[in-house]
Amino acid sequence: MRMVDLISRKRDGLEHTPEEIDFIVRGIVEGSIPDYQLAAWCMAVYFQGMTPREARDMAVKMAATGDQVDLSPLPGVKIDKHSTGGVGDKTSLVVAPLVAAAGIPVCKMSGRGLGHTGGTIDKLESIPGFRTELSLSELFAQVRKAGVGLVGQTGNLVPADKQLYALRDVTGTVASIPLIATSIMSKKLAGGADGFVLDVKVGDGAFLKTKAEAEKLGELMVAIGKNAGRKTVAVLSAMDQPLGKAIGNALEVREALATLRGEGPADLEELSLALGAQMLVLAGAEEEAAEAKAKLKALITSGEGLRTFGRWIEGQGGDPRIVDDPQLLPLAPSVVGVKSLRAGYVTSWATEELGLLSMRLGAGRARKEDPIDHRVGLVIEKKIGDWVEAGEEIAKVYARSEAEAASGVAAVLAAVQLAPTPPPKKPLVIGYII
Amino acid sequence: MRMVDLISRKRDGLEHTPEEIDFIVRGIVEGSIPDYQLAAWCMAVYFQGMTPREARDMAVKMAATGDQVDLSPLPGVKIDKHSTGGVGDKTSLVVAPLVAAAGIPVCKMSGRGLGHTGGTIDKLESIPGFRTELSLSELFAQVRKAGVGLVGQTGNLVPADKQLYALRDVTGTVASIPLIATSIMSKKLAGGADGFVLDVKVGDGAFLKTKAEAEKLGELMVAIGKNAGRKTVAVLSAMDQPLGKAIGNALEVREALATLRGEGPADLEELSLALGAQMLVLAGAEEEAAEAKAKLKALITSGEGLRTFGRWIEGQGGDPRIVDDPQLLPLAPSVVGVKSLRAGYVTSWATEELGLLSMRLGAGRARKEDPIDHRVGLVIEKKIGDWVEAGEEIAKVYARSEAEAASGVAAVLAAVQLAPTPPPKKPLVIGYII
Repeated sequence: MRMVDLISRKRDGLEHTPEEIDFIVRGIVEGSIPDYQLAAWCMAVYFQGMTPREARDMAVKMAATGDQVDLSPLPGVKIDKHSTGGVGDKTSLVVAPLVAAAGIPVCKMSGRGLGHTGGTIDKLESIPGFRTELSLSELFAQVRKAGVGLVGQTGNLVPADKQLYALRDVTGTVASIPLIATSIMSKKLAGGADGFVLDVKVGDGAFLKTKAEAEKLGELMVAIGKNAGRKTVAVLSAMDQPLGKAIGNALEVREALATLRGEGPADLEELSLALGAQMLVLAGAEEEAAEAKAKLKALITSGEGLRTFGRWIEGQGGDPRIVDDPQLLPLAPSVVGVKSLRAGYVTSWATEELGLLSMRLGAGRARKEDPIDHRVGLVIEKKIGDWVEAGEEIAKVYARSEAEAASGVAAVLAAVQLAPTPPPKKPLVIGYII
Repeated sequence: MRMVDLISRKRDGLEHTPEEIDFIVRGIVEGSIPDYQLAAWCMAVYFQGMTPREARDMAVKMAATGDQVDLSPLPGVKIDKHSTGGVGDKTSLVVAPLVAAAGIPVCKMSGRGLGHTGGTIDKLESIPGFRTELSLSELFAQVRKAGVGLVGQTGNLVPADKQLYALRDVTGTVASIPLIATSIMSKKLAGGADGFVLDVKVGDGAFLKTKAEAEKLGELMVAIGKNAGRKTVAVLSAMDQPLGKAIGNALEVREALATLRGEGPADLEELSLALGAQMLVLAGAEEEAAEAKAKLKALITSGEGLRTFGRWIEGQGGDPRIVDDPQLLPLAPSVVGVKSLRAGYVTSWATEELGLLSMRLGAGRARKEDPIDHRVGLVIEKKIGDWVEAGEEIAKVYARSEAEAASGVAAVLAAVQLAPTPPPKKPLVIGYII
């Protein structure tokens, strides 16, 4: 088999055989296919796509290039949740303890943030003492004890993906739906869960800007998951404005705690219940999503979700007192309100800009090796459709210094749009791919 | 400027600025752009194409990466001829002396053959003593004296093309019309002629199989030439069967000599006159192609074309006696006739197959470094539309051994198709792009 022939086949829109996919994946990890051939192949995939069968084979083969976690020592059906990334997306912090409180063990591997989107690991590490580097046996013990545990991705999870992603990053082939799908799903498959609930974000704050693209990605990921023998559901959700109000690590933990107390932003609660309900259904704990939602809502009302979060934090070395006293979370030294210059209905937030602003304030990373500051970020007070008076506060900037806060205020003002009439209401949950 | 951004621009169908093209071409020759980025960019060009402006800029910039020949010491308007390559295409051997005999200096750089198509240099080297490695001053002296001279391409002509082609060859991006056009035209521009007549072959024996592709390539090459300030015309010609009858180096020289004597195959004479006439028109020697053709035909009848070939050969060290005595050309030891198994009209020749057969007999190269045998090849006796009796000879195989001749006979029989009714007549010259 010669790689130049496989490139030509893909270029001409033909389907790779399983053996050809195997040849390519082995070529990536063994270094037997030169980067220039992989780069040309990635660009051909960008234009010609992949069939679900090809994508499944690719994800499965890639998953097998590194460690594959065996979750069978844990009881029951293990369901993982994944988000394609958005601004202010802290649903994992809400969903994980709620689902665990419902009796379904949650055992997650998660990543760090990059660019305009944050990572669950970074958010949890804003809790004083919280450890995200557990051994597998520590993780299992944690899940057995608290019902929920979470670690950072291990060093040798899907090395093929690390290598291919590094190449895609410098060859204009990141934005290929099948390459995104195989990258995500290879890591999910290696993570060992029995099923996946995939939150596919669409809108200005997501990396997929159109519903059509998000549907394509969702469909392909669901096909990969199912064809690999895992229960898989995708939820398409709007990312036209930050999810909830807080952006930034400690600020988001605080908002997640509020949501578990029943006092969180409506959109964050709605999406958390929608995702959690799908997890309960996939786990076989409930027949219908509506019943599952009601059950999770009851766990908010009863406080059991919040208490589970406390046990989770304590088990991983964090300070559980933050559950009742969020003031114990680190707080930025400079907090400045952003006052609207005019009156009107909020019609849009430049969401990616807000994510980048939060990054510049120190909450995120431009490059993988950048340090982050858990204290800083933004809280927007007004969501799309809200009425704002001139001079009314629309957001707060949490910064390391007065100067950074001031530049943050200007950026927030540039990111909001107001109009005399309210914008049409748009749904948060756009659809399900089952 | 970052190459990853330029890849993304091309991927998204945007036009490169002249500065971006310059950046890419410099990156190729300086090695500052890694191969994997060039490979991804080539594949993006494969799918998104290039505008005539981009292609012109690319060809001009590539031409400037190496030696650029200055033909101004030679008198008059210098017109070069180029063929995209076909089986049995020996028009240069006919056209060059004819045009020179018409008073227009012909100063050519030419290449060697690869794969199923031959090269003019190889054909001329089958003439005992013929030297194709002349210095530029030797070449000019030759043109001044004989009116015509030809050398192999110099080592440092368009190094950017050599590097890019080597990469395209292993990344499935050879068959990109704009990359083919810029590759050809960069070499033509560097060759220094004032104008170009481009013979774009289309059909089974050419690398472009459809008229639409050939038109696209012709149009782009003409646009590049004209936008670079050179007179340029493309002639689209059929390559559904070998041009003329002979395939193989000495055999083709012999056929060119016959054509210059007025005794050659009709199709070879027709195309030679068509191409030569365009050269005379571009050079300003004639107003109309019809008059130019008549002039060239008269130079065949008078024998002046043949005598010019003799002076050409003599000037470059070859044995001029072959002009009157082609038996002095090297001849294969084993010559075997191919007899038709059935009667019928010839409806098709698998032309690429015949080219590859000639290559396997030793007349061509599978790889650049392969040696060739000037003596061997094929002569087909029957062209498309000719009637063949069962047992009648349809071709002769010229081989190094009886065994190779026998396998050649089988291959020729497999390459011909016969039918009880004659096929529709198709034109040899399909069209002009002016």
